[in-house]
Amino acid sequence: MAIVVAVDHSDRTPRVVDFAIEEAKLRGEKLLFVHSLYGGDKTSAKEIEAGERLLDYVVSLAENRGVEAEKHLLVRGKEPEEDIVEFADEVEASMIVIGVRKRRPAGKLLFGSVAQQVILHAKQPVVCIK
Amino acid sequence: MAIVVAVDHSDRTPRVVDFAIEEAKLRGEKLLFVHSLYGGDKTSAKEIEAGERLLDYVVSLAENRGVEAEKHLLVRGKEPEEDIVEFADEVEASMIVIGVRKRRPAGKLLFGSVAQQVILHAKQPVVCIK
Repeated sequence: MAIVVAVDHSDRTPRVVDFAIEEAKLRGEKLLFVHSLYGGDKTSAKEIEAGERLLDYVVSLAENRGVEAEKHLLVRGKEPEEDIVEFADEVEASMIVIGVRKRRPAGKLLFGSVAQQVILHAKQPVVCIK
Repeated sequence: MAIVVAVDHSDRTPRVVDFAIEEAKLRGEKLLFVHSLYGGDKTSAKEIEAGERLLDYVVSLAENRGVEAEKHLLVRGKEPEEDIVEFADEVEASMIVIGVRKRRPAGKLLFGSVAQQVILHAKQPVVCIK
């Protein structure tokens, strides 16, 4: 079994990764870090490179703390929420860890549509980290 | 540290409780089961009785599997989302486990406002179970 961890370039990613590493240790499972890009005309070479760097970084964080980890840059013409849910099914994940947005300073509630769709459609428990 | 588990009378509660028991075992933490009722004119004696029965039941499930558990029927004039978030703070919870609704057969997306508000406002990681 493995824990799927969705990462992006936001400032909540360190907290997402930290929780996932501790949970992987508790469960004796490995981490599968995923970053989803659409591909084709919708994705630049620069975005792919940045995605690879992000994944390399989080994998190294996990390995430095003794947790086995893999990186999965998903570029297969799917929106992130669809990509994450389908990937979690493909690997028979035990859980999904994902970041959610806090409130905007203006007070308007923001609930990331990616996180919301993953929570609604994933078969696994979804851990939300702010 | 303790895990706060929000329970209601829905059919997802057994899955919520099951996840929470396993997580409590992994972490060596106790479970604090909460059920929130507004109180006063908004809550009948029958609802309070049903809440107590629900909490007694889930506590017994945890104890039968070797996990320490407490019941907390919250009747303090607060909406459930506010009650759960504030309670988790008061007890310095390590995480919150809560159920979320699946899609309605009609296909309309339903995202329980209680879960959504807890995810947005809680300081702790929130685990969503369908």
